[in-house]
Order: sequence, then structure tokens, then C-alpha cells
Amino acid sequence: MSGRLFEQAQRRLLCELLRLFYEKGWVSGTGGGICVMVNKQRVLMAPTGVHKERVTPQDLFVVDPRTGNAIRSPRNCSLRLSECSPIFCTLINRRSASSIMHSHALSAVLAADLAGSSDHVVFEGLEMLKGIRGCANLDKHPVPVIHNTSREPDLIRQINDVIDRTDLSRCYAILVRDHGAYIWGEDLWEAKRHAEVYHFLFEATIARKQCQVKKGD
Amino acid sequence: MSGRLFEQAQRRLLCELLRLFYEKGWVSGTGGGICVMVNKQRVLMAPTGVHKERVTPQDLFVVDPRTGNAIRSPRNCSLRLSECSPIFCTLINRRSASSIMHSHALSAVLAADLAGSSDHVVFEGLEMLKGIRGCANLDKHPVPVIHNTSREPDLIRQINDVIDRTDLSRCYAILVRDHGAYIWGEDLWEAKRHAEVYHFLFEATIARKQCQVKKGD
Amino acid sequence: MSGRLFEQAQRRLLCELLRLFYEKGWVSGTGGGICVMVNKQRVLMAPTGVHKERVTPQDLFVVDPRTGNAIRSPRNCSLRLSECSPIFCTLINRRSASSIMHSHALSAVLAADLAGSSDHVVFEGLEMLKGIRGCANLDKHPVPVIHNTSREPDLIRQINDVIDRTDLSRCYAILVRDHGAYIWGEDLWEAKRHAEVYHFLFEATIARKQCQVKKGD
Amino acid sequence: MSGRLFEQAQRRLLCELLRLFYEKGWVSGTGGGICVMVNKQRVLMAPTGVHKERVTPQDLFVVDPRTGNAIRSPRNCSLRLSECSPIFCTLINRRSASSIMHSHALSAVLAADLAGSSDHVVFEGLEMLKGIRGCANLDKHPVPVIHNTSREPDLIRQINDVIDRTDLSRCYAILVRDHGAYIWGEDLWEAKRHAEVYHFLFEATIARKQCQVKKGD
Repeated sequence: MSGRLFEQAQRRLLCELLRLFYEKGWVSGTGGGICVMVNKQRVLMAPTGVHKERVTPQDLFVVDPRTGNAIRSPRNCSLRLSECSPIFCTLINRRSASSIMHSHALSAVLAADLAGSSDHVVFEGLEMLKGIRGCANLDKHPVPVIHNTSREPDLIRQINDVIDRTDLSRCYAILVRDHGAYIWGEDLWEAKRHAEVYHFLFEATIARKQCQVKKGD
Repeated sequence: MSGRLFEQAQRRLLCELLRLFYEKGWVSGTGGGICVMVNKQRVLMAPTGVHKERVTPQDLFVVDPRTGNAIRSPRNCSLRLSECSPIFCTLINRRSASSIMHSHALSAVLAADLAGSSDHVVFEGLEMLKGIRGCANLDKHPVPVIHNTSREPDLIRQINDVIDRTDLSRCYAILVRDHGAYIWGEDLWEAKRHAEVYHFLFEATIARKQCQVKKGD
Repeated sequence: MSGRLFEQAQRRLLCELLRLFYEKGWVSGTGGGICVMVNKQRVLMAPTGVHKERVTPQDLFVVDPRTGNAIRSPRNCSLRLSECSPIFCTLINRRSASSIMHSHALSAVLAADLAGSSDHVVFEGLEMLKGIRGCANLDKHPVPVIHNTSREPDLIRQINDVIDRTDLSRCYAILVRDHGAYIWGEDLWEAKRHAEVYHFLFEATIARKQCQVKKGD
Repeated sequence: MSGRLFEQAQRRLLCELLRLFYEKGWVSGTGGGICVMVNKQRVLMAPTGVHKERVTPQDLFVVDPRTGNAIRSPRNCSLRLSECSPIFCTLINRRSASSIMHSHALSAVLAADLAGSSDHVVFEGLEMLKGIRGCANLDKHPVPVIHNTSREPDLIRQINDVIDRTDLSRCYAILVRDHGAYIWGEDLWEAKRHAEVYHFLFEATIARKQCQVKKGD
């Protein structure tokens, strides 16, 4: 497939996944976001502040991942670049992510609550862990939990700190207290799979706590 | 777009949003409602007592917002004007609302329960607050909670009292105990965004209470 | 509309509502059912033991409401008349029901659990009560709860007892412990509205109990 | 219907059921699976590691149920045979299953948790039990619960042990701790019915425990 056809297909798939995520309640109230890198110079990114299930292929920004700035804006000049852009680009540059979704799911908020005063939550005792690249079902899988800030770019310092920690190097998600999660993969399909897996881990761990069933040894 | 074409598009969008709200469980059992102002003389309003997901563009009443009375009724003469009309018009006239949705969601009922003997519920510690016009994610956001009455027009006195209170002037929602919520915005899109945001706030705050996780400092 | 065209439209609508009820989780696992009277001699009834969301207009039995027996069977001779037939006909003959739906919803099972050793559950403090014919939002609305039996026709004796009780004469639903509910109305549309309203009452009352919020005075 | 047309219809139905199961949250994150035997030599089986709602009729493996090995692979050579294959074939050979679905539902995980240190969970006091072949609504229905292992083929030893137990001979499901469930029937339709019934039993029993309502005598 030519680069141009590939990009068109990625634009359509990105919008399809936004509609799916909306139906799952992960990007309601115009919240949340998604991006995908089509080559080393071009990242397609959904605009901010719009009803995410209505984003169309021509509504996407093209961002340079080295700067986080838009190199091509959509024709509809009312659309604005997401404040997530520097966060997305940090994950692309430092974690080799190629596609990142930003969830505003209630389950992500409640999962971050589970951290209490800790800086991470450990997910364990769930077969679904196998759905995370490099993870086995019997692993203990820590996911970092960072503090929310008044503006999304201010999260970057914390994200950089988290990325530096070797004990958290195998996760593909970062929880943000009171806010949601960033979840990524090597392409849109892996970002989707990881999003489904991590949200399942969030929901299962919350439900087990509510059922007061202890897991793990 | 001409005024006529604009009104036709608004009629279609209003009905589309009713179907969406029905799927979300916000307007079941023929409950709930919605309106949108197309110009200063004309408010389109869904009829009462009908299955809301089946309302069609030609089923809407045209209401004069200054009186709350119908100035044009749908051809189907079995349709009746909603008892919400004076409430909707009060919000249009006194809060500059242009579109209001009336939710019968279970989460709205449970959120009103959280008020206990208070006359409001405070939502806080949630990024989703940013989805409310003028609200920041670290704000404490009080939403008024009024008592249910045997007929909806009798809610107006309480709504007028609430509108007069300066401490509640920044909200775009009023909770009604045992009943639901009125949620509004400057157009159908903002009413949709605010509806999604407030229902998320309701659900998150209820879930946190059930998880017995304390939030806020 | 001629009787024949009316019956065809009712057949289509009945199947559409089965699909809707399936999506809501009220008729899963081939459980549940529905009927509608098209005239005093003919009741259309969905077959038993089939995936309810797949029932087509030509799959319906035509039942004589005075006997509960099939007067016309569908061409597909593998289809069987529902054991609900005598129950449906009892409600038609003694409660002037014209359409009855039989729910296997989890919320109906949990609502019946709330009765404890009582023979009814009282629903109150919910605006949604207005959606029941003749009911006001401030009413206390008792719904009978009967015991489950090994076969559905054996429920009829209990249903007859319940119908005789004047204190339960204003309800359009009967809960069956461990099983579900029968919910009816004067036509398919009212049966749908009542089904949505009663399931909301079930869910709200269960949720309030879980939230340990007391309602009513 | 010729064998070839029958197989084509089964391929389409299998994929349709995968989409349905995905919508229900039973096969998210590329987890879960399904198979159906079209004759004694041929079992159609969904591939592993793919988004299950996107599987198409030409993506299926044809497996010999006597060996569990693929006798025909799909043209798309990136697709891999599921590790479930030996488990599916064990259930085909030893339990006369003709169609098996493998669920990764959260409710299956939570239902297995209910077993505590026991090797089974008893489901009772639910009309929905009638939806299981040979089961009456007043039966106590034990479902075996086995331990999760690092790889799915290692579950086979435990599954063989469970199949040998006469007290568990009437069930059509096996729960796997932290993992999900295998549920089967004599064809795709019965596997679907059993899947809906067992997931209802899981959800109802968990919900009753959360409501702290005791059932059974």
C-alpha cells in the first residue's frame, strides 16, 4: 500500500476506534483522545474539545512528533490541536509508542483511586494480563499513577519521571488520578488491544475490591 | 444556512440526540425531554408521553419562549406539549440556555440522594469538570438539588430560587430529588456535552461513595 | 387500517420489541416472552425456547385468549407454544391486559429478593412511577411477589390469588421470585412503557439499597 | 443443505456470534474464542490473538478433532491456531460438545472467585437454570472451578479430572480462576444459549452476594 493510501486507511480506522471508545464510555463529554504515527515525520491526532464519536478523517491534525507542533491543520479552522500533543509525543519519542489513546473512563479514575498514597497500582491474578505485550498471566504488573494537574502539558514532568523508572518499564499505560489513563501500543490495533486489556484490569480489580475477595498470595 | 434549513437540521439533530439519550438510559419509559431555541421567537420542543427514541422531526412543538405556549403544534394531534415547557423557558429566559435536556437517569436520582438534607451536591476531584463551560478541573462545583413535586410546573418556584443564588450561578444543571436533572447549554452540542459530563460526575461520585474512597482534601 | 394490515404491523412491532428487550438483557438465554391481542379472538404470541431476538413475524402463534390454546401455529413446525400462554390469557381475561411481556431480567430477580418474607415490594419516592397508568409520583406502589414453581402454568393459582386482592389492583406487574416479572399494558406501546418503568423501579430500588440511602418517610 | 453450504453458513454464524460476544464484553482484548464441528472430521475454529469481533468466515482454521491439529489453515498466513484447540477437542471427544465458546468475561472471573477454596460453585434458586439442557429451575447446579495455569494447554489435565467426576457430569461449563470459562452445547445455537444462561447465573450470583441476600434453604 502506498504511503498515501496507508494514511487514508489509518485516518478512517482512527475515527472508527474513536466511535468504538465513545460507545464504551471512554471518551464522553468531548474528553479523551487518540493519535497514530504514520511515518517518522507524521502523527495523526484527533482535535480537542469536540464530540469524539463525530470526528471524521479530514478533522485530524498532522503533528511532527519531534516538536509536538502541527505541521498540517484540518480545513475546518474551528478545530484546535489537543493539549495532549506533547504527552503523546513524549510517549512516542521515549517509549516507542506509535499509537496512544487517552481514556476518560470512570474505571480508570476508580483504578487510580486504588493507589491510595502509593505511586502505582499492581494488577495481578488475571489471565487478561497476557494481552499486554511481554506480560504473562502470572506476573505482577505495576502501572504508575501520577497526580492530576490543572493543565495537561504539566503532566509531562511526571510522565518523564515515570518513564525513567526501570521498575515501571514494562507497562503500556499510565494512570492519572481523578482523570483517566494514557494507553499505547505499536500501532492502532495494539493500542486498541491494550486499551481493552487495561480497562478490563481496571474493572476487574475494582470489582474484586467491592466484592471484598482477596487475590494473590 | 437559511433559517428554514437551519431549523430542519436542528429538528433532525434533536431527534438524533433523543435516540442517543434513550440508548444511554436517560429518557426511558417515555420520560425525559429536550428543547432547542432556533431563534428568539421559536423553541423546538419534544412532545410529552411518547417513546422518546421514536420522536421524529415533524413531531416537535414550536414554543414561544416568552410565554411557554405552543405557537405551532405538530400535525399529529395526539401529541401533547410537555409540562417541562415553563421550566425550559425559565432556563432560557433567566440562564441564557438555548438547549435544555431533561434526564430521568438513575445516576441523577442517586446523585440527588447524596445531598442528604443539604440543598446541593458538590462535585470535585474530577478532570471531567473541565467539560463544563467556565469550570476548571480543580474547582469545587456545587449543583443545586431541589425537591420533587407532584407536577413539573410546581418545580418552577424552586428553580427560580436556585437561579437567584449567586453561589450556584456557575452550574448548568439542577438535580431534582427522586426524579432526575435539567441540564443545559448554549446549543444542542453544548447541552449534549454538559449532559455527558454531568452524568459522568453523577456516576463517578456515586461509585466513589460505594468504593468508600474519600476524595478531596 | 384493515385488520389484516394491523395484524401484520403488530407482528413486526412485537418482533422489534423482542430485539430491543434482548439488547436490554431482559430475554436472554431464550427466556422471556411477549404477546399482543389483535382482536378479541386472536392473541399473537412468541414461541418458547428460541433465541428471542431472532423471532420473525411468521414465527408467532395465534392463540384464543378464552382457552389459551393455539388456533394457528407457525409453518415452522419445530416451534412450540410458550408455557406462558395460560398466564398471559389469565392476565388478558382478568386484568384487561392486551399485551404482556415476560422478563427474565436480573433486576427483576433482585427486586423480588427485596421482598424478604413479604408477599410484595413497595416502590416509592420515584418520579418514574408517573409512567404507570393511574399512578402518581408520590404514591406508594405495591407490586406482588409470588413464589417460583417448577413449571410456569403452576404459577397461575398464585396469580389468580394476587388478582383478587384489592390492595394490589393498581399494578401492571407481578414479580416472580428467582425468575423475573410479568408486565402488561393496553397495547404493545404501553407494555413497552410499563416494562421500561418497572425495570427502572427495580434498578433504582436495588441501587438505593446498595447505597444504603433510605427513602420515604 | 449440502455440506459445503452448511459449512459456509456455520462460518458466517460463528463470526456473527463472536461480534455479539464482543459487544457483551466476553471476548475483549483479543481474548476468548469459539469453535463448531461441521462434521466428525472438521472443526471450525477462530484464530488466536486477533480482535475477535473482526474475524471473518475465511479467517477460520479447520481442525481435526481427533488430533487438535489444523488440517486447513486460512490464507492469511499471519493467523495462528488457538492454544484452546486441545481443550476444545477434549470437550468434543469426551463431552460430546459440538460447539464451545471460551469467555473472558469479568463475571466469569468473579464467579470463580466465589468458589473460595472449593473446587466448584453451586448455582441455585434461579429460573434461568432451565436454560441448561437437562436442568430444572429448582436444581442445585454445581460448576467446576479449576486453577489457571501459565499456558492454556496445561489446563487439560485438570479438565480431564473434572470430566471424570460424576457429580459434575451435568454441567456445560467449566470456570477457570482468574481467567474465564469454557461453555459448550450441541451446536452453535445451544452454545450461545448456554453462554447467555451461564453468564446470567454468574452475574446473578455475584449480585446477590453483593446485596447480601441469602438464597436457598
